Amino acid sequence: MADTKDAKYTPELRLRVLWGNDAMLGPGKADLLDHIAETGSIAAAGRRMSMSYKRAWMLVEVMNTTFQGPLVDSTRGGARGGGASLTPLGREILALYRDLVRVTSDAGADRMADLTARLKQPSDKG
Amino acid sequence: MADTKDAKYTPELRLRVLWGNDAMLGPGKADLLDHIAETGSIAAAGRRMSMSYKRAWMLVEVMNTTFQGPLVDSTRGGARGGGASLTPLGREILALYRDLVRVTSDAGADRMADLTARLKQPSDKG
Repeated sequence: MADTKDAKYTPELRLRVLWGNDAMLGPGKADLLDHIAETGSIAAAGRRMSMSYKRAWMLVEVMNTTFQGPLVDSTRGGARGGGASLTPLGREILALYRDLVRVTSDAGADRMADLTARLKQPSDKG
Repeated sequence: MADTKDAKYTPELRLRVLWGNDAMLGPGKADLLDHIAETGSIAAAGRRMSMSYKRAWMLVEVMNTTFQGPLVDSTRGGARGGGASLTPLGREILALYRDLVRVTSDAGADRMADLTARLKQPSDKG
């Protein structure tokens, strides 16, 4: 039996929450929020994800109109050179999403291990 | 407070399991397996998902080399006109994935409800 402990055989759960066709929250938006919090800039956050400036702004605009208030507070250009930060609601949504990933990954660990055990192993390659 | 019981405010969890860059299982492949089981045909299964014949075959070929054996048993053309069915391993992988969706959706229900409660409501539109 092959060693299944290396990174290749470590399953990761990636999840999206969909509300019909109206709203979606997934790893891309969550990562963008994380990077905005860290860099203080939508453009810098997008660059970290190899995302165009235009796409990063578009995602922020979508997020800012999906929930009950903006998730990102930003100024385009100006004295501070386009600074951005998460609003309290933005931090709350991000924390809820990260918590959702954690509890679902824990709950699904056994089934993911069962799937992983059925992956082709190096010794199966012929 | 707006009614949050209509379909628009019902969250759905969509998930992918990733094993590094080597393997992935998500809703597209699972749905394709379901449709192959129902239609007995890769082409018909793809059509149900508005997927090209080429893409449906490509996904089947990827699935058939990702796990310890093929998930789909198929004949291209021939007397049966290209019949396809799930192998026992294919049925097992599909059942594990559906079970994973169920247990993670249950485990994440509270957090999804918290996110849903923070969605913009019709009364917020200005």
